[in-house]
Amino acid sequence: MVEESIAEKMAKDMKEVSVAEFFEKNRHLLGYENPTRALLTVVKEAVDNSLDACGEAGILPEIKVVVKPTNAERFKVIVEDNGPGVIESKVPYAFGKFLYGSKFHRLRQSRGVQGLGIHGAVLYSQLTTGKPTKITTSIGKDIHVFELMIDVTKNEPIIVSHKTERNPSKWHGVKIEMEVEGKYVERAQSIPEYLKQTAIANPYAKIIFDGPNGKVEFERVIKEMPKQPKEIKPHPYGVEIGLLRRMLSTTKTKTLLQFLTSEFSRVGRGSAEQICRLAKLELNKKPQQLSHEESERLHKAMQLVKLKAPPTDCLSPLGEKLIVEGLKKETGAEYVVAVTRAPSVYRGNPFQIEAGIAYGGNLPQDQPAQLLRFANKVPLLYHQSDCALTEAAIETDFRRYGLSQSQGQLPVGPLVILIHFASVWVPFTSEGKQAIAKYPEVMKEVKLALQDAGRKLASYIRQIRKTREAQLRKELFEKYIPELAEDLEKLTNEQKQKIIEALERMIKKGGVSGKEESGSEKKS
Amino acid sequence: MVEESIAEKMAKDMKEVSVAEFFEKNRHLLGYENPTRALLTVVKEAVDNSLDACGEAGILPEIKVVVKPTNAERFKVIVEDNGPGVIESKVPYAFGKFLYGSKFHRLRQSRGVQGLGIHGAVLYSQLTTGKPTKITTSIGKDIHVFELMIDVTKNEPIIVSHKTERNPSKWHGVKIEMEVEGKYVERAQSIPEYLKQTAIANPYAKIIFDGPNGKVEFERVIKEMPKQPKEIKPHPYGVEIGLLRRMLSTTKTKTLLQFLTSEFSRVGRGSAEQICRLAKLELNKKPQQLSHEESERLHKAMQLVKLKAPPTDCLSPLGEKLIVEGLKKETGAEYVVAVTRAPSVYRGNPFQIEAGIAYGGNLPQDQPAQLLRFANKVPLLYHQSDCALTEAAIETDFRRYGLSQSQGQLPVGPLVILIHFASVWVPFTSEGKQAIAKYPEVMKEVKLALQDAGRKLASYIRQIRKTREAQLRKELFEKYIPELAEDLEKLTNEQKQKIIEALERMIKKGGVSGKEESGSEKKS
Repeated sequence: MVEESIAEKMAKDMKEVSVAEFFEKNRHLLGYENPTRALLTVVKEAVDNSLDACGEAGILPEIKVVVKPTNAERFKVIVEDNGPGVIESKVPYAFGKFLYGSKFHRLRQSRGVQGLGIHGAVLYSQLTTGKPTKITTSIGKDIHVFELMIDVTKNEPIIVSHKTERNPSKWHGVKIEMEVEGKYVERAQSIPEYLKQTAIANPYAKIIFDGPNGKVEFERVIKEMPKQPKEIKPHPYGVEIGLLRRMLSTTKTKTLLQFLTSEFSRVGRGSAEQICRLAKLELNKKPQQLSHEESERLHKAMQLVKLKAPPTDCLSPLGEKLIVEGLKKETGAEYVVAVTRAPSVYRGNPFQIEAGIAYGGNLPQDQPAQLLRFANKVPLLYHQSDCALTEAAIETDFRRYGLSQSQGQLPVGPLVILIHFASVWVPFTSEGKQAIAKYPEVMKEVKLALQDAGRKLASYIRQIRKTREAQLRKELFEKYIPELAEDLEKLTNEQKQKIIEALERMIKKGGVSGKEESGSEKKS
Repeated sequence: MVEESIAEKMAKDMKEVSVAEFFEKNRHLLGYENPTRALLTVVKEAVDNSLDACGEAGILPEIKVVVKPTNAERFKVIVEDNGPGVIESKVPYAFGKFLYGSKFHRLRQSRGVQGLGIHGAVLYSQLTTGKPTKITTSIGKDIHVFELMIDVTKNEPIIVSHKTERNPSKWHGVKIEMEVEGKYVERAQSIPEYLKQTAIANPYAKIIFDGPNGKVEFERVIKEMPKQPKEIKPHPYGVEIGLLRRMLSTTKTKTLLQFLTSEFSRVGRGSAEQICRLAKLELNKKPQQLSHEESERLHKAMQLVKLKAPPTDCLSPLGEKLIVEGLKKETGAEYVVAVTRAPSVYRGNPFQIEAGIAYGGNLPQDQPAQLLRFANKVPLLYHQSDCALTEAAIETDFRRYGLSQSQGQLPVGPLVILIHFASVWVPFTSEGKQAIAKYPEVMKEVKLALQDAGRKLASYIRQIRKTREAQLRKELFEKYIPELAEDLEKLTNEQKQKIIEALERMIKKGGVSGKEESGSEKKS
């Protein structure tokens, strides 16, 4: 029987693939699709890790980034921070085992979440140079120096070497050193651009970059750390039936009442009673004993009961002041507006959108707006065209605000548009974390933020247009005063000089402009 | 010491995340970002699996797809094939454990490769409905009926039930039944569109779709299976140092000579000797004993030695004939061209680009070209804007071929453009498998294919334009013949009627058109 032997042959080929092996073969998913982006990704993952660690420990970050060529195709990358450090026993896992980390199960705004970032860099280094990554770290006691590689088929760390050194100065932090294949550029999607934008969104950080073409320092602008975002429990509206069933079976609580009030946010005793009544379940029923049908009823009831939106102290927005200052400093624009929207919710996850628009000044007149995208304060440099933030910007009608825009395009003019997406969980379109998935709730909030910002900008644009048009009108009028006065003299028998004086008084009072301009606003 | 306690607190939060858990939380990565796409993804993963299984067994596929609403938000999905079936012991893993499959390590063109596809559908079903997936399968012996779920925290299958039934008719195949949250549409990115495009690229398959709005059958057009692509070994040019080192340490061969000639394609005894000479290594050295430095030398030598390109019988292109027939049938265009390029290589992986252009007929005149993208015969419906195939099409200058096109856009006109990417390894930009990463080699080949197709089309467009212009010119001329004749009569004293006859003869011979048209071609 032909089919049987084929089914059996196919069965023999079946085996498990480790997650490290998966990402080794699919390294473009992590941002290693070409040497230019790969070098940027290595730096980005290390810097993001450092900023997160400092943030968590409440330490004002000071981060040193070194990128130096070792030959035509390879670079040495060193990133050192003054964060809390990593304890000895966790170092191999934190850097050498995929899907291992502290941030995955936590609902709180942070840069990394997936446990794939720095591990990807270690893997890319060993894949392209065959060399281990060197980690030097201390929590203020001894200094530990590890050389690590990843056992790809098992997804386990390999400790190539481990030394302990004394630490008289009580240094703490992490220093990561690796050699990777890469290509260094300074144009658009580059390390300097990433660091510049990172500095805009993290003005409490000091970043020193020692690159192939010399040193650049991004000075600390704000001397205080922003308030730390808090961790929250999931909100009932965002929990799917499959997840609810798992929570029911693994909870340590003894009754449904306890389960509902302690494992979710915004569920007090009153709401819990209401949920159980709707679901026709006893408040003191054991969560572990719910049948499939009962858990479905519970799930439905949880969606029906009216609950407060999730708490938002898990979020850490940039704030309008910071956006305005950052954009002013970086763009040299003549006018900047910013909007921080109130938090909203998608799939039960709180999120918050901020937008800024910089206008005029030295910005180029006839080009499409430059778009700066951020997710949890991390600049997004790749996959702009496939990102919810871009799409929402394109779908916003900027013509209403006195700007020109073609269908399906960003507005054209002396513009930089900044959008920040802050959330406890960022729905990136791929592990490379460069674009945000198009959830309808996210798209809607971005558009509202851009509309708010657009309206603020419009009144400024109207104002300068009004001033400019009045000026033009005045100049035009003045040019024709003598001629006009002559005609009027003939008509009225009044003295020419008197007429000229009267006309000039009119111009000074602004009487010749006004009416027509409000018309021209509507046209634009 | 503040830092210490934070570092230790952070360490306590660190733990491993299972790959199933990762994809549960990031389900949009697998194509489950909204109910419409989710329903399509479920169908797509099951159909792709069926087509792959039939292909591998050399069975002409007959696939039944049922999609029926069970309530306002949920659908029952059933996909049944006549493939080889799955053996009893492997069923739980093939459907209930992520990163488990037969295709990951194999270099051969196939639809699935990652061991994430159908598992994602099972996970999505249990997440949104809490229900198990039912698998009915036989390899021609007994029929096995499983109900499966996934233990998400462990990434292991849960067998909810397992029954064995007798199989007097010797049926073989797989029938998968699940209930999922979804939304059914019939517009652009829809199940009917996916099935229609699948039928274009797989004309040897019979697909019967029983959807919410009735039955559609896609008949088998070709009665023979295409030649099965062969499995190949990796090519030395595409092997990175990290992978080479792993291959060296795990190989079962005893000498470098054996290692090089048996684990790579296109390395014979002569090439192996050359490589070892360049690397200053003994041919009979044990592969497992190479130092880090020696393996670097070996790697460099492997890149320097001249080798034949990898074999290409691992690929299964559509072929120009099939593309022309498929596009004609589906678009009703008046003219269709197709190009199958010779195979090429990226990162050591053979790949092949095909392109087709359908022109005229009932296609709309003033809209951008419709783009049909395929990867290994699977239609790609999402993420068009972020795909190498799209970008290469946009960067191709179609104006050279008599079409109109704005910068950064697809050409405008009555056009459908088809691009097929066939490879042993498709570099998808995310696990949802809807867009191809922008490897320079891929972009280049796509452009060359489109240029070839464009040139073929251009001569047709030139021809119809010539005919049409000649016609216009003739009509215009005819209109003025009487007037012209009168003038000429006065000038020449010739009889008017005679002049008219002479002018009409000229037109018939085509003497009034010609010169100017070649000019107008260049303009367009």
